[in-house]
Amino acid sequence: MPAPEYERLQPSQFGGALPETPSYADAAAVILPAPLDRTTSYVPGTRNGPRELLIASAQVELWDEEIGADVHGRGIVTLPEMDLASGTMESAMAELGRAAGRILDDKKFLITIGGEHSITSPLVAEAATRHRGLSVLQIDAHADLRDSYQSQRHSHACAMRRTIDHAPLVQVAIRNISEEEVQALPSLKTTIFYDWNMRDDPNWIAKAVDALSDTVYITIDLDGLDPATMPAVGTPEPGGLSWRELTTLLRRTFEKKNVVAADVVELCPIPGLASPNFIAAKLVYKLLTYKLRP
Amino acid sequence: MPAPEYERLQPSQFGGALPETPSYADAAAVILPAPLDRTTSYVPGTRNGPRELLIASAQVELWDEEIGADVHGRGIVTLPEMDLASGTMESAMAELGRAAGRILDDKKFLITIGGEHSITSPLVAEAATRHRGLSVLQIDAHADLRDSYQSQRHSHACAMRRTIDHAPLVQVAIRNISEEEVQALPSLKTTIFYDWNMRDDPNWIAKAVDALSDTVYITIDLDGLDPATMPAVGTPEPGGLSWRELTTLLRRTFEKKNVVAADVVELCPIPGLASPNFIAAKLVYKLLTYKLRP
Amino acid sequence: MPAPEYERLQPSQFGGALPETPSYADAAAVILPAPLDRTTSYVPGTRNGPRELLIASAQVELWDEEIGADVHGRGIVTLPEMDLASGTMESAMAELGRAAGRILDDKKFLITIGGEHSITSPLVAEAATRHRGLSVLQIDAHADLRDSYQSQRHSHACAMRRTIDHAPLVQVAIRNISEEEVQALPSLKTTIFYDWNMRDDPNWIAKAVDALSDTVYITIDLDGLDPATMPAVGTPEPGGLSWRELTTLLRRTFEKKNVVAADVVELCPIPGLASPNFIAAKLVYKLLTYKLRP
Amino acid sequence: MPAPEYERLQPSQFGGALPETPSYADAAAVILPAPLDRTTSYVPGTRNGPRELLIASAQVELWDEEIGADVHGRGIVTLPEMDLASGTMESAMAELGRAAGRILDDKKFLITIGGEHSITSPLVAEAATRHRGLSVLQIDAHADLRDSYQSQRHSHACAMRRTIDHAPLVQVAIRNISEEEVQALPSLKTTIFYDWNMRDDPNWIAKAVDALSDTVYITIDLDGLDPATMPAVGTPEPGGLSWRELTTLLRRTFEKKNVVAADVVELCPIPGLASPNFIAAKLVYKLLTYKLRP
Amino acid sequence: MPAPEYERLQPSQFGGALPETPSYADAAAVILPAPLDRTTSYVPGTRNGPRELLIASAQVELWDEEIGADVHGRGIVTLPEMDLASGTMESAMAELGRAAGRILDDKKFLITIGGEHSITSPLVAEAATRHRGLSVLQIDAHADLRDSYQSQRHSHACAMRRTIDHAPLVQVAIRNISEEEVQALPSLKTTIFYDWNMRDDPNWIAKAVDALSDTVYITIDLDGLDPATMPAVGTPEPGGLSWRELTTLLRRTFEKKNVVAADVVELCPIPGLASPNFIAAKLVYKLLTYKLRP
Amino acid sequence: MPAPEYERLQPSQFGGALPETPSYADAAAVILPAPLDRTTSYVPGTRNGPRELLIASAQVELWDEEIGADVHGRGIVTLPEMDLASGTMESAMAELGRAAGRILDDKKFLITIGGEHSITSPLVAEAATRHRGLSVLQIDAHADLRDSYQSQRHSHACAMRRTIDHAPLVQVAIRNISEEEVQALPSLKTTIFYDWNMRDDPNWIAKAVDALSDTVYITIDLDGLDPATMPAVGTPEPGGLSWRELTTLLRRTFEKKNVVAADVVELCPIPGLASPNFIAAKLVYKLLTYKLRP
Repeated sequence: MPAPEYERLQPSQFGGALPETPSYADAAAVILPAPLDRTTSYVPGTRNGPRELLIASAQVELWDEEIGADVHGRGIVTLPEMDLASGTMESAMAELGRAAGRILDDKKFLITIGGEHSITSPLVAEAATRHRGLSVLQIDAHADLRDSYQSQRHSHACAMRRTIDHAPLVQVAIRNISEEEVQALPSLKTTIFYDWNMRDDPNWIAKAVDALSDTVYITIDLDGLDPATMPAVGTPEPGGLSWRELTTLLRRTFEKKNVVAADVVELCPIPGLASPNFIAAKLVYKLLTYKLRP
Repeated sequence: MPAPEYERLQPSQFGGALPETPSYADAAAVILPAPLDRTTSYVPGTRNGPRELLIASAQVELWDEEIGADVHGRGIVTLPEMDLASGTMESAMAELGRAAGRILDDKKFLITIGGEHSITSPLVAEAATRHRGLSVLQIDAHADLRDSYQSQRHSHACAMRRTIDHAPLVQVAIRNISEEEVQALPSLKTTIFYDWNMRDDPNWIAKAVDALSDTVYITIDLDGLDPATMPAVGTPEPGGLSWRELTTLLRRTFEKKNVVAADVVELCPIPGLASPNFIAAKLVYKLLTYKLRP
Repeated sequence: MPAPEYERLQPSQFGGALPETPSYADAAAVILPAPLDRTTSYVPGTRNGPRELLIASAQVELWDEEIGADVHGRGIVTLPEMDLASGTMESAMAELGRAAGRILDDKKFLITIGGEHSITSPLVAEAATRHRGLSVLQIDAHADLRDSYQSQRHSHACAMRRTIDHAPLVQVAIRNISEEEVQALPSLKTTIFYDWNMRDDPNWIAKAVDALSDTVYITIDLDGLDPATMPAVGTPEPGGLSWRELTTLLRRTFEKKNVVAADVVELCPIPGLASPNFIAAKLVYKLLTYKLRP
Repeated sequence: MPAPEYERLQPSQFGGALPETPSYADAAAVILPAPLDRTTSYVPGTRNGPRELLIASAQVELWDEEIGADVHGRGIVTLPEMDLASGTMESAMAELGRAAGRILDDKKFLITIGGEHSITSPLVAEAATRHRGLSVLQIDAHADLRDSYQSQRHSHACAMRRTIDHAPLVQVAIRNISEEEVQALPSLKTTIFYDWNMRDDPNWIAKAVDALSDTVYITIDLDGLDPATMPAVGTPEPGGLSWRELTTLLRRTFEKKNVVAADVVELCPIPGLASPNFIAAKLVYKLLTYKLRP
Repeated sequence: MPAPEYERLQPSQFGGALPETPSYADAAAVILPAPLDRTTSYVPGTRNGPRELLIASAQVELWDEEIGADVHGRGIVTLPEMDLASGTMESAMAELGRAAGRILDDKKFLITIGGEHSITSPLVAEAATRHRGLSVLQIDAHADLRDSYQSQRHSHACAMRRTIDHAPLVQVAIRNISEEEVQALPSLKTTIFYDWNMRDDPNWIAKAVDALSDTVYITIDLDGLDPATMPAVGTPEPGGLSWRELTTLLRRTFEKKNVVAADVVELCPIPGLASPNFIAAKLVYKLLTYKLRP
Repeated sequence: MPAPEYERLQPSQFGGALPETPSYADAAAVILPAPLDRTTSYVPGTRNGPRELLIASAQVELWDEEIGADVHGRGIVTLPEMDLASGTMESAMAELGRAAGRILDDKKFLITIGGEHSITSPLVAEAATRHRGLSVLQIDAHADLRDSYQSQRHSHACAMRRTIDHAPLVQVAIRNISEEEVQALPSLKTTIFYDWNMRDDPNWIAKAVDALSDTVYITIDLDGLDPATMPAVGTPEPGGLSWRELTTLLRRTFEKKNVVAADVVELCPIPGLASPNFIAAKLVYKLLTYKLRP
């Protein structure tokens, strides 16, 4: 006895009800929603980030006029939201790594949607074991290089310190770093482009791309954007990237490097404000378009 | 190539990820989300009602201490949201009727979640063709008996005038009715319990139940509740039912009558206010518990 | 050269675009919006009260099922919002008195919409000079009998102390009174019905009405209602009247007394929450219906 | 019996209570509020756009320091909000055309305030029959060139496809266009300045102006602005014009062309956020200043 | 070099700037803000509860007309907010117990303000070691008797299971209890007054008080109130106590028993809504008045 | 009997609980919260500005990567919020002047946090009597040079006209000035950098700094920033400074001049929006860093 058929909405699927929805097996790209929200220190709510991003994604136009393509036919599949609320932080990290590892083994382009930034380190670890020489492009207001924060080594404030063991970093739009982190920098494999002066070099975008190795993982903390454009983050910082700067940096990275996976994290939806959710969704589709373009 | 397995959230399923989720074939009850939002005249947003109700439903406790039972094991399945945004109002009504008819044919207990009140008339029509002598219990602030409103015969303000052709009504908590409707009352098959004086009779609940025939369809416009409890509606009216009054009326109806289907409509989520969404979800689970109790 | 004619909305008119709109000369009742907002001590925003009440009033059903009448044909006219932002508090009070006096001289039923409670004293003063023996029915959480507050004798917290010189009071639903006020009570012409114990007497409503003289002015501070029903006030207090209690008290007052004018004050609209604005508008229409009924 | 006189606020008039308010006959410019809100597909609420824009307009400074003039003495009159909620979409379009036609016949500079973008096509049609060779400057995130959307040919998503039959377009800041629209472009009379690359030409503003004919209608969908500046739109898109870019483009268009009418559409007020409403109001006054300057 | 003196506000002190502020040594009552927010499962934000309650408390009238007293002169002192964000849950519990123990040793009446309900168990433990035979009056929608929740034994959902080892419970207004908890009830020292049927006995309040031992700790989860009155909680449930029921129950408990300490927990402030914060503050002052009355 | 010791939060202290908190005597800089809110004409709420700024300040990173320093060890002390709600406007101004004078006499770097802009004139008066030849750098959307506004000479709209008697001005980012003010300009000691054309000179920042005398008071009305970045102001104006422009102008002023005091005014917190509060707090810390750097 099958359920009745009718035109349906799919609020949990990227793109809502896409004209062509593949099976997992046929999909070129996989969206993995990971609403981890445990260590947020200022504005809570990133647990609702994946859901609101997916709801907004139904409004994203499939044709991209910059690239001149509609890539959705390559196959984009959205997995169910992970349940990361119970158990220890360590077990949540492990579960996330297992899921991501399987998807990478299946040769899909993986975009994980957070959730707090802590999710990045197991994702990079899985990518690095499969791609020797991987480097990480991090767009972020915060260096996130603390060794621990509030007695927690898996805090969002330590996200990249946990990551750097697996792959070297290129950090862009940084405008919040502690003295402790600055002192640790000489021993860390990272190149930082500080927001306050990176634009003094008109070629800063090209240099950021050049600082990466051939195979790249991209992690985008949405607070890397100017909070004028993206107020819906847990720890906003004035300054940051414009939409144009961000998309230019990303497009060039995809043009020059082999990007194997990405994440978009720290969306903290603001009740009544649709714009940030939509911008996050459009950013995910830009990543898909840059990767899957003909 | 199957997708990876992990603990998952299900924001589009009633109850989130229920411990036991049946197939459609095995389910005793079916939730049909119908986010129609076309003729709203005051506060817009009922299109988001089903989605927010389902999100909130993950917080509803499965055990009901009033009945002393957890009925979810009887099988509750949630269908995908219908896409009712395109085409004419008439075609949307027809599509809704087709889906509901199939579910009733499959002998499921159907709860449709709105969306605006206009969805009720095709639902009652389908139920009435399958259950001779059906009557309708309507909980509502508004009589909704206008013949047309803003040149539209399928407006939410005409919802029950379209319905009354299919089955007689018992209308409870009414506190908004126009002169035009009052003049039409003598020719309409309805019994009205006005909010302003119904409680003058201490047995009003028993009398409302007695006014129904043996087989009943229940339609709950959430503005039938006091707006203190339920502010998230398109057209709030002071007065109205308390939670206790509403649940007592419903429990007695289920105890004395054969309720074959129900709808809960006009939830207009208010950004930042969780309580109304949760109350609507709990109301749906009360209906399920009263119906499916051992 | 006349402007083009078309169907129009009237957001500044009570009832929106009423089917029959009289001239001032033909109107039986006059709505005077007085958005004074100067001495608010907690939540600001009562300056927007009249505007939002009038916008919401377009949704009020003209037929009243309790009275069985649609009174709008008697003539309800809404004057433009007064500009009370400049000059001293004393000059604003005087301007308000002048306008109200003219309307009372023209034998209209006057309903003034606030704005803060300070507006009541000049209104009562004008009514009292025209109606010997006038008394005041005050619905309010606060006694408002301070002699001065924050060095200001025309503060909202002194509204009724300024009023009591013109007419004796019956104060209902009081649940905030200072020690200074309690000590002054023996010398003040007021009868207080305290919210915490007034319902211990089942005839409290009749007794409140009986405590009034034959000719009555009604002032309704919306915080007299339970904040569950009416959260949109500057200084909410738990407890207070239900909608049913308030309308019963008002209906009986109109049935037994000659009510010559009224005000509804202290609506502080909450962005995104439509229900309180609508309830305030419906309350104004209840006053009109009780007064103008056939 | 005249109503009493006093200082008054005018929330429904552009500029609140302007120092000099002309009659319709003496006005050089006419503001027509058209709160059409029927086909919105994402964030609802544009029906409140005209009202909130007019409320905010009372805060706009009348002196413009860029032009060095206060033009309000030329005569700006605001007509009542049209009631476009009832009847078919076609009849609403016709009513709007009739009103606009009368105003254009009276040689007024017409600024229509939406409401959704669908209102533009009847407005341009009326302007084009009175001004041979008219062209349209469209500022917008969306091309709006779909032939139909959700089975509706008068959807906001088709606004400019309905318009293009009456006059050729110059479309600026476009960053959302579907494949279907791109394929139709060769047969459409439009010049598109895409947001993603138009600034690569430092003379893009001059070129956009040059692409227009001598007589121009301007339609401004507020989502043409960067959503950082203007989040209160139904379908925000990242990127878009800065305030400086928009005012420069408009000023040059007025300097070089004969602008005969304009509209500002798609304001969807966000409860609690005053800034977007004010910016929309200031934009309307910029149009008035550029047109009416000495 | 002392700082300059001037009239000052005290947003972190209960009552704002009370007329008489004692030293800790002279205070009869101590307010301890404990913004623990770690295990919330639905609406986050209880970490802001103490701060917003204290801000609102400046608006509470010091005179209580029910008791006829102003007790603030007995000495009410507010300690700084505890920093409970770092370390393990266990260490936070221990720190809280240490602070509370000291205050109880100093013979102060302690009111702890949450924060999530998990804080209650160490507080009761400290009270029980100092008062043999202590019992606990719990006002709550949720039984909170789970043995663990989401792998966490100190979750808010287990708050009372952790507490029951230290003192027996009387639980009032319960309307959410799981099957697991119901099955454990026979072995637990608790008397439950279920919200759905407790009012069937007109003497239910007296019976609840009688079920307590002579020495009592009171824990008030604000969701025990009707969400109409108190929507600002993490897990709202329809039904629950009215303000009148709650204050009557509390007053009688204080009249008949020796209440040694209390807590008020789970305030989750809703941005833009002042009423719930004020009601929570007034509730704290009711507790103080009932305890410190002459 | 001392109160118990524990880790504490300090929501009323700049920086929350700074690692090193000096006494007033040892502090190099003093934060004075002055929540004056009396003459606001559009969006109310600036009375909550200081409190929300201080709450947000706990999230500001102490290390400044632009300057390469953490200055908090120099000693930053926050005084209690002034109570400016009672008495006349003149007495509030005098009280503010007294407090500020004392702090300046004690040779502290004073940053006053508003509150409305009216507070600036007594602050500048005190600074000018202690520093001969003082000039004022004003960042603002509004010239604020009206001689009176709404019959009030101490209105926020007259803030700088009251100030100019004490010291000449350099006004930056001005984009709202009335005809009355423009006509008065020739007789006023001010240099205006208009937002609409100041950037036409690539050296405008250097010229603004050069226009100042050697000793400088800085007043920052937050509406001088682009409302995209700073929507939480009482009277937003499109255009304005970016964060980069503002910090560059400030840094250069501190590098070239002796800045003796500053104020940051007109923060009107928007419920639910954390970003503007944080940006205002970060701006205060930028001022502290530029002043106290090694």
